[in-house]
Amino acid sequence: MANILIIYDSQTGNTEEMAKYVYEGVSRYPVNVRIKHVDDARAEDVLWCDGLAVGSPTNIGLASWKIKRFFDVELLDYWGDIEGKIGCAFSSSGGWGGGNEIACMSILTMLINYGFLVFGVTDYVGKRFTLHYGAVTAGKPETEEEREVCIRLGERLAQWTLALIDGKKEYLEVLKKQKEEK
Amino acid sequence: MANILIIYDSQTGNTEEMAKYVYEGVSRYPVNVRIKHVDDARAEDVLWCDGLAVGSPTNIGLASWKIKRFFDVELLDYWGDIEGKIGCAFSSSGGWGGGNEIACMSILTMLINYGFLVFGVTDYVGKRFTLHYGAVTAGKPETEEEREVCIRLGERLAQWTLALIDGKKEYLEVLKKQKEEK
Amino acid sequence: MANILIIYDSQTGNTEEMAKYVYEGVSRYPVNVRIKHVDDARAEDVLWCDGLAVGSPTNIGLASWKIKRFFDVELLDYWGDIEGKIGCAFSSSGGWGGGNEIACMSILTMLINYGFLVFGVTDYVGKRFTLHYGAVTAGKPETEEEREVCIRLGERLAQWTLALIDGKKEYLEVLKKQKEEK
Amino acid sequence: MANILIIYDSQTGNTEEMAKYVYEGVSRYPVNVRIKHVDDARAEDVLWCDGLAVGSPTNIGLASWKIKRFFDVELLDYWGDIEGKIGCAFSSSGGWGGGNEIACMSILTMLINYGFLVFGVTDYVGKRFTLHYGAVTAGKPETEEEREVCIRLGERLAQWTLALIDGKKEYLEVLKKQKEEK
Repeated sequence: MANILIIYDSQTGNTEEMAKYVYEGVSRYPVNVRIKHVDDARAEDVLWCDGLAVGSPTNIGLASWKIKRFFDVELLDYWGDIEGKIGCAFSSSGGWGGGNEIACMSILTMLINYGFLVFGVTDYVGKRFTLHYGAVTAGKPETEEEREVCIRLGERLAQWTLALIDGKKEYLEVLKKQKEEK
Repeated sequence: MANILIIYDSQTGNTEEMAKYVYEGVSRYPVNVRIKHVDDARAEDVLWCDGLAVGSPTNIGLASWKIKRFFDVELLDYWGDIEGKIGCAFSSSGGWGGGNEIACMSILTMLINYGFLVFGVTDYVGKRFTLHYGAVTAGKPETEEEREVCIRLGERLAQWTLALIDGKKEYLEVLKKQKEEK
Repeated sequence: MANILIIYDSQTGNTEEMAKYVYEGVSRYPVNVRIKHVDDARAEDVLWCDGLAVGSPTNIGLASWKIKRFFDVELLDYWGDIEGKIGCAFSSSGGWGGGNEIACMSILTMLINYGFLVFGVTDYVGKRFTLHYGAVTAGKPETEEEREVCIRLGERLAQWTLALIDGKKEYLEVLKKQKEEK
Repeated sequence: MANILIIYDSQTGNTEEMAKYVYEGVSRYPVNVRIKHVDDARAEDVLWCDGLAVGSPTNIGLASWKIKRFFDVELLDYWGDIEGKIGCAFSSSGGWGGGNEIACMSILTMLINYGFLVFGVTDYVGKRFTLHYGAVTAGKPETEEEREVCIRLGERLAQWTLALIDGKKEYLEVLKKQKEEK
């Protein structure tokens, strides 16, 4: 079974809320899933996983310092040795135009640095809502579309991990069908 | 008098609509202002200006190829000779999460490359709407907040250009007062 | 057999030289490989491939306008329909500090936008030479290290494509052994 | 007199070495200058300054978690109230292609978020060495060119701060003359 990990930081609870919806999306698939606040996440969690979603509040345009410290310090001993996992990002900012996409890119940058293969999602999950570089919300995910971008991210992470790492190519068809329904 | 230039590309008319609101914001200040579609913009327009706002549809996550060509080809002879102007960005994407912030960053990157000093705006212009890396909209600027982010970008560009390039420090007070009203 | 495509733009011949070394790296593996100047590349080439390396001179900090136009125009009809390919980047700038890493990130951004899974390489190929976000050179790839970063990029692209898309997990061992030799 | 601040983090001493050369460049101009390791820097230092250079080792592709924490926590109370300062970046990575430019961009992103006007430098300071998005080195700044990119960054920061914030337009001529000598 493929192993999926969600690591998130949260100050106001908004990103934690997003993380729960990402978890919901992942859980629709036959995978093992762990969800950890960054304070509780350990290097071994990353070693365990095949696919990883990292979420952070948008803090000064980038992932929070705690998320940064996790990659700078906690995971450092394994740098260069954990290539080939699948990674993606999510972030909640104070408002639209507040940097949530750029914060997602900062997370993807860290994952690329660790040798992950990273992705965004082209799907629109409603009028004017998509997740091209990861799931983003302005504040708490309150609308159906904002919840759905998080769920979709989790689903896609499970699909790619199953199809590419676990070799279950039938999930490419599941993915394709989901996209056609949009 | 300070000279302000707005260059934009537009396919559906959405970014053109943004450009008009940026123009409206600039026009509230005692400056000369030009607005040009990228097809009509010339290197001399950039030489003329003290402050520049560049707008583009979010195309595949970055500024459009026409905006890119303008900086790659049309302006190239002046690379390295036009330092010290003030620059900013705006972009309209198909949806939230569709890359408009990242497209703004691609524009700021090009402006930094040409020696501009670039800025974003910390102001919130309404609940959940700001313009930290430039003005962004999802589709046409239809809500009051989406129009206001464009206007605010134009105002701030005029304020910085007047205060820093033209030496009219009183506009720092105008800026400060505007921020306190938020 | 897995299909690998290299698309590049080149003005001075420097990026073309890089492309040849990327090709050399890819060719060490049992894959089909095509190499195309962006002027000659067509949407069908991308449809054909399982793995793609895109190279560009660093122009004003980003990929060239011709590379941008390829993704904006030539490939646009297939946006949203070609998910799940593997992608990477390479770029040559006028000097160190001239933007080649940022140009690579602009290419990765476009590939992410099209639904690719993108990667960088953690390997050092010599003292002070690596390719964390894609292969980069300052000018023509003249030193052994600069040639080697290009070759390594091609090798890694072939390895990931074989292992993840083609399901030949034995190439994960090849990759691992190569990293241990560094 | 204009006030210039240099804040840096350093683990191996490489970025500290860069910071000293940035300091040397700033010191050639009639400004007050402070240099602080991030552990010792306080919000009041930033309030005091008119121009700021931030340096960091390239850690996992971005500024270090300590630099991030400084902007996330130490300076947070002043967010939105310190607009209009001049900012720039420098970073040392383990090798070329190791992310030093991207780390500079992460610093510029944080400065833009705080309302700074940020810049890079178009000058080449030697064959194949420039600092378009801030000063970068691979490891310790050992060659003359790597020292010179740091010095040039400090000089340019002093020049822009004197000319734009302090209103001493004669430094635009100093800058122009320096560029012509290149």
